[in-house]
This record gives sequence, C-alpha cells and structure tokens, in this order.
Amino acid sequence: MDSTPPPRARLFVETPLIVGGVVTIEDKQAHYLTGVLRVSEGDTVALFNGHDGEWYTRVQAVAKRSVTLQLLACTRPHRLPPDHWLLFAPIKSGRIDLVVEKATELGVRGFGAVKTARTVVSRVNEDRLRAHAIEAAEQTGRVEVPELFPYRPLEAWLDRWPTERRLILCDETGQGAPPNVALPPHQGAPAALLIGPEGGFAPAELERLRALPYVVPMTLGPRVLRADTAAMAALTCLQLYLGDWEDKPAFRGSTSA
Amino acid sequence: MDSTPPPRARLFVETPLIVGGVVTIEDKQAHYLTGVLRVSEGDTVALFNGHDGEWYTRVQAVAKRSVTLQLLACTRPHRLPPDHWLLFAPIKSGRIDLVVEKATELGVRGFGAVKTARTVVSRVNEDRLRAHAIEAAEQTGRVEVPELFPYRPLEAWLDRWPTERRLILCDETGQGAPPNVALPPHQGAPAALLIGPEGGFAPAELERLRALPYVVPMTLGPRVLRADTAAMAALTCLQLYLGDWEDKPAFRGSTSA
Repeated sequence: MDSTPPPRARLFVETPLIVGGVVTIEDKQAHYLTGVLRVSEGDTVALFNGHDGEWYTRVQAVAKRSVTLQLLACTRPHRLPPDHWLLFAPIKSGRIDLVVEKATELGVRGFGAVKTARTVVSRVNEDRLRAHAIEAAEQTGRVEVPELFPYRPLEAWLDRWPTERRLILCDETGQGAPPNVALPPHQGAPAALLIGPEGGFAPAELERLRALPYVVPMTLGPRVLRADTAAMAALTCLQLYLGDWEDKPAFRGSTSA
Repeated sequence: MDSTPPPRARLFVETPLIVGGVVTIEDKQAHYLTGVLRVSEGDTVALFNGHDGEWYTRVQAVAKRSVTLQLLACTRPHRLPPDHWLLFAPIKSGRIDLVVEKATELGVRGFGAVKTARTVVSRVNEDRLRAHAIEAAEQTGRVEVPELFPYRPLEAWLDRWPTERRLILCDETGQGAPPNVALPPHQGAPAALLIGPEGGFAPAELERLRALPYVVPMTLGPRVLRADTAAMAALTCLQLYLGDWEDKPAFRGSTSA
C-alpha cells in the first residue's frame, strides 16, 4: 500500500467489500466526490460498510452521475466501539444533530431518542439522525455506523431492559455519584447513558429509575449543563472509565507527527 | 427567602450588588425580561456580577425600555471554578460559539483563541465570544463569567508562559498519554488545555511544545475528534481529574427531586 496516496474521502457504503471488487457510487455521494472534491481517475477513496473493515479503492472512472471505484485492499480490520448506548430525550433539531454527531465521534455503539413525561418534541426525524451518524462515522474514522434505535417511551425501554446492561442516569438533581465513583470498575461491560429532557425527569420517573437495580445515578458537577452538553460530557466519562480511550488513534496517526 | 418564588431569569450585570440596592436593567436585557419573559411587578430575577455572588431581586417597576429591580438578598456566595484555561485555534463561527458555550458550562476560568501555523481563520469576533460566554454563564448557574484572553499567536503565549501552569496539549497524532495517565495527580493545580486547528499543529509547533517541561501531551482515544469535540471531551477530563465535579449542583438542586 506504500504507493497509494492518502484517501481523498472516506465513505460508508452498503455493498460488500471484497478483493478485486468494484463499487459504483451514485447520488449524493457521487456528487460529493465529483462536484465537491473533484476526484479524478487514480485518486484513492476509503470505504467501509460496517462489517468488512476499511478498504482503500482507486477511482477507475468518473461519469456525470456516478463514480466507479476499484477495491485495492483492506486497510483496517472490522472493529466495534465499546458497547455503550446513548438514550436521550429529544431536543430541538440543531441540538439533536449535534448530539448524534458527538456521540458518534465519542464512540457509542447505539443511540436512540426516548419519550419522557416532560418531552415536548413529538416527532424525531430518524432518517436525518441516521444521515448525521453516517457522516460523523465517515469523519471520525469508524469502520461502522452506530445503530439507531426507534423512538420509544421510557417505560417501553424499562419494561424490557436487558438487566446485565447498567443504565447510567444523568441525574441533574445532584443525587447521583460523581463519574469516578459511579462508573468504575466495570471496564468493557455493556452500559447505557440516559439523558433527560430540558425540564428534567418527572418525579415519578426518577423514583422508578432510582429503584431499579441496574440504574446508576450519576452527577456531573456543580454547574447546570444543557442536555447536549451533559450527553457529551457523560459519554466522555464512559469512554474514560469503561471504554477504549487507552487505544491509540488508528486513523490519521501519521499525518502530522 | 422561603416566600420568594424561583427566579424567572438569571442575568449578569456590571453594577455592584449590595443590600438595599436597586438595579436598572436596560437594552437587550430589558427586552428579554419584558418582551420575551413578560415579567411583571413582584417577579423574582437573579443577578450576578462576577464578584458579589448571586442575588435575588424583586421586579419593582417595568417601563417601556427598562426594568427596575430591588435587591433582596445574596443567595449564593462568590465562587470561582477550577483554575483551567482553554486555548484553541479558532474555527468557523458556529463551532467556535459552541466551544465557548460548552467551555463555560464545563467550568473554564478563562479562554482564548490562539493563532497557529495552520490556522485559517484570520479574525476572531471577541465581542461575540464574550456575549456567548455571558449567556452560558447565566444559564449554567455560574456567579461569574470566564475571562476572555486576546487573540494571540501560539509563540506569544509560549514566550511568556507561567510555568507553574501545566499546558495539556491535545495531541491528535496519538503520541500523548490517555487522560487517566496524563492528568492525575494534580487536583486543584492550574492547568490550560491547548486544542489545535482542523489541520493539526505544524511539525515545528509540535516539536517545540513537546520539548517544554510544562507541556503534557494527551490523546483522546482511537477515533478522530473534530476540534470542538476534542475541546469538550478534554475539558470534561480536566474537570474529572483536576476539577470540582465531586461538588453537588448549587443551582436548580431542588427542582425535580
């Protein structure tokens, strides 16, 4: 691979990636390659599809509405991030997009919006969230895209909760433990983070949550955090105590050392 | 204070806050109180000015372009967040606003934009950044606003660096230590976080930084983080290892328990 130039782009595709294969890129992704990046024959493009790792490809042909890529070699093996989920009460669209972007960069394996008693957002545009997750996965060097769970009420989640998965409740009333107490020592264990709506959880919700054996209330310091800030900060804590942050970057590692 | 209703707003003002005092709110803040919140006589508004703590006030009079507030009592003492600075290469305006907002919520004491070799943004709107910091301080329950340092080149910062302050270098090349190794055990010590531009630091900058005795290179896991994500995640780590996150919320603590 030494003679292969660094990739001009990293794209998520839904096709199998195999030695000798050819992939045709169409629609928005083709427009991005041709109209935005203006790739030409011989350029390198990286692809991933969520189960075959990352592959380098060479641009074989550029047409008006499509780009043909020839698969060269697998450059990184398949890898899943730590088994962390983010469940959040939906917030207004700019902020929810940001949460999805950051959660993808911060390495969640799955995420989903949760309807709580005080949730005021009635509709969640799941296609839009998925598109943001794909874009963030492309940018952050992941070889898969986090799973998007359907929008569901909190009770529906709790009624069939997989009890081996700890549910970290971001408790803005200050009754939880700080992250260094709440999170260790469960390195590598499945976990989920629950972020309430702007108005907080209702008292009955908090009561039910706190009584569940798999729920761990966590507090994030003395300042009030917006819901999106709480999500990013808590996901950082999950990575630190339960995740893979001791691993070195697998991507971009050589660009500026 | 038991009979005082919860404040309709929290505002930063530049006037002294003393027992028996009266404060007149004008301009944008008056418009916010009258046009957006529609406060009326007898409503409670919280004020802070950066050195006298937080005060509750009662709306005494509402005029077309001003609101008169009567100071009731100091409800929280003055308090500074941990002595952490955020220095960041400027990024495009939406993202830089977000960094200022999040850094304020995550408890930095001071922040400033830094010009690096690969910085492409030439101008930083300091008034705009300060306005964002004030708004975030009002929202997050701080009793002061983080200090904004003037936009300066990296060399100018390093040439007169206060060497007792550790400079945590967010090193996206992966050569730093993970936060749990890079940060402890310096609880309460002054620290600054340095975030490079989207294109990374130039090799000469990295070489100079790494040779300085007060610089600690830190790496944030195996995924590539955008500059704004790196800032938020690293500030979270600073709070966890060096900050005040073991303190309970001083504000909003009683709303939903």
